[in-house]
Amino acid sequence: MTDDVVARLAGLGLTLPEPPQPLGAYQAVVRTGSLLFVSMQGPAIAGEPVLLGRIGAELTVDEGREAARRAVLNALAQLHRHLGSFNTLVQLVRLDGYITCSDDFTGHAQVLDAASELLVAVLGDRGAHVRTVCGVRNLPGGLPVGLALTCAVQDAPAAASSGASG
Amino acid sequence: MTDDVVARLAGLGLTLPEPPQPLGAYQAVVRTGSLLFVSMQGPAIAGEPVLLGRIGAELTVDEGREAARRAVLNALAQLHRHLGSFNTLVQLVRLDGYITCSDDFTGHAQVLDAASELLVAVLGDRGAHVRTVCGVRNLPGGLPVGLALTCAVQDAPAAASSGASG
Amino acid sequence: MTDDVVARLAGLGLTLPEPPQPLGAYQAVVRTGSLLFVSMQGPAIAGEPVLLGRIGAELTVDEGREAARRAVLNALAQLHRHLGSFNTLVQLVRLDGYITCSDDFTGHAQVLDAASELLVAVLGDRGAHVRTVCGVRNLPGGLPVGLALTCAVQDAPAAASSGASG
Repeated sequence: MTDDVVARLAGLGLTLPEPPQPLGAYQAVVRTGSLLFVSMQGPAIAGEPVLLGRIGAELTVDEGREAARRAVLNALAQLHRHLGSFNTLVQLVRLDGYITCSDDFTGHAQVLDAASELLVAVLGDRGAHVRTVCGVRNLPGGLPVGLALTCAVQDAPAAASSGASG
Repeated sequence: MTDDVVARLAGLGLTLPEPPQPLGAYQAVVRTGSLLFVSMQGPAIAGEPVLLGRIGAELTVDEGREAARRAVLNALAQLHRHLGSFNTLVQLVRLDGYITCSDDFTGHAQVLDAASELLVAVLGDRGAHVRTVCGVRNLPGGLPVGLALTCAVQDAPAAASSGASG
Repeated sequence: MTDDVVARLAGLGLTLPEPPQPLGAYQAVVRTGSLLFVSMQGPAIAGEPVLLGRIGAELTVDEGREAARRAVLNALAQLHRHLGSFNTLVQLVRLDGYITCSDDFTGHAQVLDAASELLVAVLGDRGAHVRTVCGVRNLPGGLPVGLALTCAVQDAPAAASSGASG
């Protein structure tokens, strides 16, 4: 089955990056029943310039939006590696966003919308989600944006390459 | 069926506000199976004075508690609009609280209790919930309090006006 | 049935503390279906010196790691009291970590790993989890670390002391 999500990403000039290794003693993805959780992802993508610092200070809002886009691409890459495709993803459910910003920053929604809009653009109705967001003191390694996803997936174990039914 | 939650709110002199529109490309409520998630809600209610700033600095603890009450009223309003009533709400499960406060503030629990106490007052046993709370650098638009809810609802799709069984 | 988790804790020289009372109008644990949520736990353990302040300023990284260990012990104690044992715990799912730290702190993962490593050491495969972490302005009462857990448990109600089947 073709994966139209990957095709839509390509139509936007985007490809799924290599999903980042966890930064510690945790998993990138854990599934329980029909719920699947993705660990907080930052914007670091191999081969691209690193975005570090506070949005509204060292980084502009546009750079913050680019960081949010990269973080959500990493989250999608984790989902894709875990599920084997996006075909068994039923619904994105919740996006928790953490933004490192200056004290007087108020544009959190504008930054996170770069991630939310990309999710809806490539997942369609399945990309609709609730959202939390806060401006934090800082994030691991000086990252400007961190995003965690909660998703609903088909309840049966994902079929392995043998194509067993669910 | 009468909705005793709305009646209990009225008994406290409260009415459900018009649920606020999302501030970006996300949904106010998403349901998957028997879980229902409400996006982070702030204290802005049409027609009431705006509460902005840090608790412990520009705002007192009492103003912070009033902000928490308004934020949870907005969350209840989102629930009510999505479900059509509170009758299919099985259990409040989790409240995530985010508080914009001064550096030396320690009264987070006192502020959030205004929200937790209201939930228990109007939902009874169904209002019991776990809680997270943190003092953040800031929130979208300078809000002093943000609250997100996770709830359990009856597993069958909410019956539409046709009265279909669940 | 012996509880090998308690035995593994003992092998590390650790015992479950008395689970702390909630600091407000919420519950320590709420369960819905096969999901169980534990409220944010801090590192305060009766009889042990209190750890307060910002990691990277008043507290060292090692003190932060000790705080994370104590917080996760409190979370495990809440789980144990609620379930009666760890035998019906199917899987740890998600750990949300909140760290009070200095502005230039970058070692969040190192601090939280003290909690994650303990969970894996005593729960084995059941201890694998996704993680979020942020550096916050502050936490209730000046705590340096707060941790919240989401877990999967056996779907049937936990058997009471009567030994009823599930």
